[in-house]
Amino acid sequence: MNSSTTDKMYIPTYDDVLEAHERIKPYIHKTPVLTSRFLNELTGAELFFKCENLQKAGAFKVRGACNAVFGLSEEKAKMGVATHSSGNHALCLSYAAGRRGIPVTVVMPHTAPQAKKDAVIGYGGKIVECEPSTTSREAVFAEVIAKSAADFVHPYNDPRVIAGQATCSKELASQVQDLDAVVAPIGGGGMISGTCLTLSTIAPKIKIYAAEPLNADDAARSFKAGHIIADDAPDTIADGLKVPLKDLTWHFVKNHVTDILTATEQEIIDAMKLIWIHMKIVVEASCAVTLAIILKNPDVFKGKRVGVIITGGNVDLDKLPWLKH
Amino acid sequence: MNSSTTDKMYIPTYDDVLEAHERIKPYIHKTPVLTSRFLNELTGAELFFKCENLQKAGAFKVRGACNAVFGLSEEKAKMGVATHSSGNHALCLSYAAGRRGIPVTVVMPHTAPQAKKDAVIGYGGKIVECEPSTTSREAVFAEVIAKSAADFVHPYNDPRVIAGQATCSKELASQVQDLDAVVAPIGGGGMISGTCLTLSTIAPKIKIYAAEPLNADDAARSFKAGHIIADDAPDTIADGLKVPLKDLTWHFVKNHVTDILTATEQEIIDAMKLIWIHMKIVVEASCAVTLAIILKNPDVFKGKRVGVIITGGNVDLDKLPWLKH
Repeated sequence: MNSSTTDKMYIPTYDDVLEAHERIKPYIHKTPVLTSRFLNELTGAELFFKCENLQKAGAFKVRGACNAVFGLSEEKAKMGVATHSSGNHALCLSYAAGRRGIPVTVVMPHTAPQAKKDAVIGYGGKIVECEPSTTSREAVFAEVIAKSAADFVHPYNDPRVIAGQATCSKELASQVQDLDAVVAPIGGGGMISGTCLTLSTIAPKIKIYAAEPLNADDAARSFKAGHIIADDAPDTIADGLKVPLKDLTWHFVKNHVTDILTATEQEIIDAMKLIWIHMKIVVEASCAVTLAIILKNPDVFKGKRVGVIITGGNVDLDKLPWLKH
Repeated sequence: MNSSTTDKMYIPTYDDVLEAHERIKPYIHKTPVLTSRFLNELTGAELFFKCENLQKAGAFKVRGACNAVFGLSEEKAKMGVATHSSGNHALCLSYAAGRRGIPVTVVMPHTAPQAKKDAVIGYGGKIVECEPSTTSREAVFAEVIAKSAADFVHPYNDPRVIAGQATCSKELASQVQDLDAVVAPIGGGGMISGTCLTLSTIAPKIKIYAAEPLNADDAARSFKAGHIIADDAPDTIADGLKVPLKDLTWHFVKNHVTDILTATEQEIIDAMKLIWIHMKIVVEASCAVTLAIILKNPDVFKGKRVGVIITGGNVDLDKLPWLKH
C-alpha cells in the first residue's frame, strides 16, 4: 500500500460522526420522518421513512460532501474540489463547494439524468463527461486530477464522506425509538457504511439490511463470496446504485450488515410508484429498492419497526420509468 | 329562504374552529411546512409551503370531513353520510366515515381521476357516477339523497366543513411567524373561507389571496361583480377547482379576501412541475395555481413572507400534464 491508500483506510469513528454533524448542521436539513398507514398495512411492518429526498440538493450525499468541503483548511479549500459521480454526489459536492465559494469539477457519465446535470451547473459546478462505466469514469477523472491541485472527494470511499453520511441514521435514531431494523440502498456503500458506523456504536441491536438492484448485485455477490466483486457497467434504472464497493465501504459492509437483499427492475418500479402515490413524495428509483425488498421478504420484516432511508429525489420528470412500459 | 337554507347560513366562528381542531386531531396530521431556496430566489419572496398533500387521505379536505363526521350524534351517524365531490372531498369523507365505521355514498363525475376513485373505494366508500357538470352532479345527488337518510356533508358550503378547513391556517400561523400573506387555491371556496375565518380572527393583518385557473375564473369574476357568478362546466387541469362559490363561502370571500388572481393552464402546469422538481413532493395541479400566481405577480409578492397552501397530492401518475404536450 502506498501512503495515499493508507490514508484512505483510516476507519472513521463515531467521534468523527459527532464532529461531522456539528460541522455540517448549518448547511443541511434535519429531514422529516414520514409514515404511511397504507404501506404499513401492505407490508405488515411499521415503516419509518427518513426523507433525504427533502434534503438540501435533494439527496443524503450533501452530508458527506459538506463534511469534506467544510473540513478543508483555508489553503486546501482555495484549490477547489473534484470528484466523479453517477449523479447525486456530483450535485451535492457542487452545492457544498458553492456554499463555501470554492471551485468544483465533476466527472459524470453522459447518460446521467439531465435533472442531475442541470443541478450541478445550477450550483456552479463544472462537468466533464465520461462513458457510463467504472473504467471510463476513473480514466477520465485521472486526467482531470492530473491537471489540477483540487482535493479529490470520492463519492463514498472516503472517511470524511462516510462520517458525513453517518449523521443521517444519527438523526433517525433520535427521531424514532425502538427500531428493529434499518434498510438502505447499496451502490458503492457510502450510506450503508455510515449507517453501520452510527448504529453499531449507538444502537447495535438494530439490524442493518442493504437493498440492491438484481441487475447490479455486485455487493450481494461480494457479501456471499467474502471479498469485493466489481462489475464494470451494470444496467439498472436505479442509476445511483451502479458503482462497486471499495475497501473502506467493504470494511463496514462485511462487519456490520445483516444481509443484502435484491429486487428486479419491475419490483423497483412498482415500489417507486407506490411511494409516489401513497406518500406524495418524489423519490428516485434507487431508494425505492428498499421498499421493494421489504415487500419481497415479509418473513424478514413483518411485525418489525423498520427505518427506511429515502436517499434522494432528483428524478427526470420527463422520463418516469412506469410510463416507458 | 326555506329553513334548510337558513340552517346552512349559520356563519361559523373561531370558537367552532377551536372545537373542530380538538375533535379532529386524532384523525389528522399536523402537516409540515417546507421551504425551497430555489423557489424563494425564483419568486423573490419567502415562501412557506403548508403541505396538506402529506395530510391523511392526501388532502386538506379531511379536516372538514372529519369535523362533520365526528360531530354527528350516535343516532345520526348510524344513518351514514353522503356527498357530491370533484374528488378529494369524496375520498376524505370516505376516510372519515371509515374511521368512524359508518356508511358513505359519494356522487362523482365519471371523469374524476382514477386515483381518486380508487382511494374512495379503498376507504370503503360507495360511488355513484354523474356527468362532469354542476347540474348533473346536483341532480344525481338529489336522487341519491331522496332514497337515504344519510347526512349531507357538502364539500364546502357547510359551516362544519369550513370550521374544519380553518384548522389548516391555525396550524400554519403557529408554525410560521410574521407572515405578510397567505395564498390558497379557490374552487368552491372551502379552504379560502376557512383561511379567512382563522386569519381574520387571530392575524387580521395577513392578506389573503385566492388563486384560480383562468379557465374556471368564476370566483374572480364574482369578486369583481360583487355577486356570485357560477359557470356550469368549466374545463381546467386543476380538476379540484371547477365548482362555483355558494352563499356561505361567498360571505367569507367578499368580506376577507384581498384579491383573486388567475393563471393559465400552461402557467399552472409549469408551476406544478417546478414544485415537483425543486420540493420533491407530489402535488395536484389545483394547488400549483398558487405558485403560478406568485410567479406572475411579483409586484404583489416580492419581498413578502408568504404562506402557500398545498391543498392535495392525489394525482393520476399515469397522466401527468407536462407529458401530454
